[in-house]
Amino acid sequence: MNTRPGTKDHHVIIIGGGFGGLYAAKVLGRAGVRVTLIDKRNFHLFQPLLYQVATGGLSPGDVAAPLRAVLKRHKNTRVLAATVESIDVEGRRVLLSDDRSLPFDDLIVATGMRYHYYGNDSWEHSTGSLKTVEDALDIRSKIFGAFEQAEAVEPAARAAWLRFVIVGAGPTGVELAGAIAELTNSTLRGEFRAFESNQAEIILLEGSDRVLPPYPQGLSRRARRSLQKLGVDVRTGARVQQIDAGKVIVEQEEQTSTIETHTVLWAAGMRVTPLCDELARAAGAEQDRQGRITVDDHLNLVGHEQIYVIGDIAHRQQDNIPLPGIAPVAMQQGRFVAGAIIQRLKGRSLRPFRYVDKGQMAVIGRHAAVVETGPLRFGGYLAWLTWLLVHIAYLIEFDNKLRVLAEWGWNYLTRKKGARLITRPGKGEEQLD
Amino acid sequence: MNTRPGTKDHHVIIIGGGFGGLYAAKVLGRAGVRVTLIDKRNFHLFQPLLYQVATGGLSPGDVAAPLRAVLKRHKNTRVLAATVESIDVEGRRVLLSDDRSLPFDDLIVATGMRYHYYGNDSWEHSTGSLKTVEDALDIRSKIFGAFEQAEAVEPAARAAWLRFVIVGAGPTGVELAGAIAELTNSTLRGEFRAFESNQAEIILLEGSDRVLPPYPQGLSRRARRSLQKLGVDVRTGARVQQIDAGKVIVEQEEQTSTIETHTVLWAAGMRVTPLCDELARAAGAEQDRQGRITVDDHLNLVGHEQIYVIGDIAHRQQDNIPLPGIAPVAMQQGRFVAGAIIQRLKGRSLRPFRYVDKGQMAVIGRHAAVVETGPLRFGGYLAWLTWLLVHIAYLIEFDNKLRVLAEWGWNYLTRKKGARLITRPGKGEEQLD
Repeated sequence: MNTRPGTKDHHVIIIGGGFGGLYAAKVLGRAGVRVTLIDKRNFHLFQPLLYQVATGGLSPGDVAAPLRAVLKRHKNTRVLAATVESIDVEGRRVLLSDDRSLPFDDLIVATGMRYHYYGNDSWEHSTGSLKTVEDALDIRSKIFGAFEQAEAVEPAARAAWLRFVIVGAGPTGVELAGAIAELTNSTLRGEFRAFESNQAEIILLEGSDRVLPPYPQGLSRRARRSLQKLGVDVRTGARVQQIDAGKVIVEQEEQTSTIETHTVLWAAGMRVTPLCDELARAAGAEQDRQGRITVDDHLNLVGHEQIYVIGDIAHRQQDNIPLPGIAPVAMQQGRFVAGAIIQRLKGRSLRPFRYVDKGQMAVIGRHAAVVETGPLRFGGYLAWLTWLLVHIAYLIEFDNKLRVLAEWGWNYLTRKKGARLITRPGKGEEQLD
Repeated sequence: MNTRPGTKDHHVIIIGGGFGGLYAAKVLGRAGVRVTLIDKRNFHLFQPLLYQVATGGLSPGDVAAPLRAVLKRHKNTRVLAATVESIDVEGRRVLLSDDRSLPFDDLIVATGMRYHYYGNDSWEHSTGSLKTVEDALDIRSKIFGAFEQAEAVEPAARAAWLRFVIVGAGPTGVELAGAIAELTNSTLRGEFRAFESNQAEIILLEGSDRVLPPYPQGLSRRARRSLQKLGVDVRTGARVQQIDAGKVIVEQEEQTSTIETHTVLWAAGMRVTPLCDELARAAGAEQDRQGRITVDDHLNLVGHEQIYVIGDIAHRQQDNIPLPGIAPVAMQQGRFVAGAIIQRLKGRSLRPFRYVDKGQMAVIGRHAAVVETGPLRFGGYLAWLTWLLVHIAYLIEFDNKLRVLAEWGWNYLTRKKGARLITRPGKGEEQLD
């Protein structure tokens, strides 16, 4: 164990204001150490509800919390809207893109993943993927724009505009497919004159043999049934061969088929950011296929007790299974490493990290979800209510629960507040002319 | 009076889904004539609250209503998301940018205005203006981005990032200045470490001798006092000479001074769109300085009884004063021309259009506004409450009042719904790397 100076001078840098980074910052802020949280964006994004922004159910401001507002009361915590260029492991410094260099005593790397196209980077331009607020607004424009096109074009060209292909049936793919089905089955009914919205076709492609592959078999079956009830065409064992303008080529059971569509949404592979790859190389750390960095019992970069790697980018086995890249894991890891830093400062010994699985869930439609918690596995309306309550509870946890509830009430009456995210929209569109 | 075929075959085209166009569509939809509403965007924008989107108080979805949803029940009404290229006055056709050509029996032109830079078009790139949803998000990014810069830069460079200049003290400029003052005085307090948010300077420049020039003197005085109480530096008789990167040059009382700032918001001049100019030329219609087209007693393009021009782009004198370009005028004109078309179809004669002024108001801050209605002129908290209630009432009027109220309640509980605007954000920003 290092001997270190007093708590107040101890400087922790956190890279990334997602679930892992934010939860670490909240614990450290209360402990009185000096904290710098670095994120490119000025807001924390509640990713589990981002699919709702993509399908028009929520506004960006509803699923984002300004980092400064969340961490306002921790006077020793500084939020920096900046881009990290590289990490100097030996020199214990973080280099920013504007050439500033910040020294740290401890570093928490929590940068998260990005979508990955298996070497087909050109697909990125013909598909939408769901990671940032801008992504969500892009997908929203794609979906609703496709319906507008379907209204405008000749009948022969209509079907391809009304066909939506989602690649990947993990939680995000399933949620997107369900939400688009809700749109076509109810929200958009009666709004078009050239067709009826339920003529739309929603195709969900999954390479493995079932939807929600990381979940138990029973849940996967339930989710598939729910999707089919909503009219989603679920195709498992289906691999995308090619994505071109206006079509997707798919291989399934050794047959190749072409799907004509103008809307392909990508919810398949993820990979760590280049910064993580570089960090792993510099530290000689092991990485898995998705680039996730193997960490030790205390979530340290192996051999570097002052550097922690948490959340989606950490590879950590528990009971011989790698922990999944989901919000609850990141939150628990964020809290754990913050505690570990404080314990070490006090010279106390550490227990290893252990994830406590409180259950998994995925939402399929307005009144359908699947939930697994302990011995319980259920679907349908009750599962949807559970999903809703858990997500509202977590949304509220950004801040003091009662105050936020009161504010919601006030906002509801006055319609004023909090959507202070800095997005980067294109220059305002021309007026109608 | 023309003799015309039956109501059902009668085809009215409306260009523009703002207040004028939408209110005309709602009346005509109920009358059973065939209606085509053309707009570039798929939503109606409630512009009076757009400044709230720009200052982070509301999300775009809160101030927009999907045109299709609003007009869903009118089965003879078609909404086209398209761009009008030109109007063939003699041939009674509208030409779209995708080469489609639509014949009309009656045409309602309601395209609205855009910001105008008095021949200094380069200023458009260094300022933000507030007309579209993207404009509002741009301004939002400018404002909150400036605070982030102020936190990051050396102390000597900080003041220019904390100085906000608003050009034009009409309702939009006054509302923006007040809302930014609210941000710095309360919302952002305690969130930064390098400065306190109330160190920000807000400068409101107005060329004429008072704020809110179209309003009565007493209201202008009250508004100015309210702004000054919020800490806004109000400068009347101040003309912008030049806008460059990092500075604005202003002439006031024959003195030229330079304001160092990185944030200039433009709320000064407006002009009609090129389509209007072209229409006026083709029809030989008179235009005023802002390009607004002079209309007759029935809001017809003079000499063209089948073409109506309404809203901000119509120049109409009433009691020797031109009607102002505000939402209530557009709404009343929209309803009037719809009624006029129906009356003409029935062969009935028409009364001339007359605007009924129910009062004017502008909001200055969270609890301050100015209101004038009939003999009443008041400010302060009561005015703010009045402003709030009137705006909520109009927002609700997009649709069945009770249903919307119920939905608001449901959304408040479930956080689900309606933000289905197609915006054009830039491609999703890179992940943190």
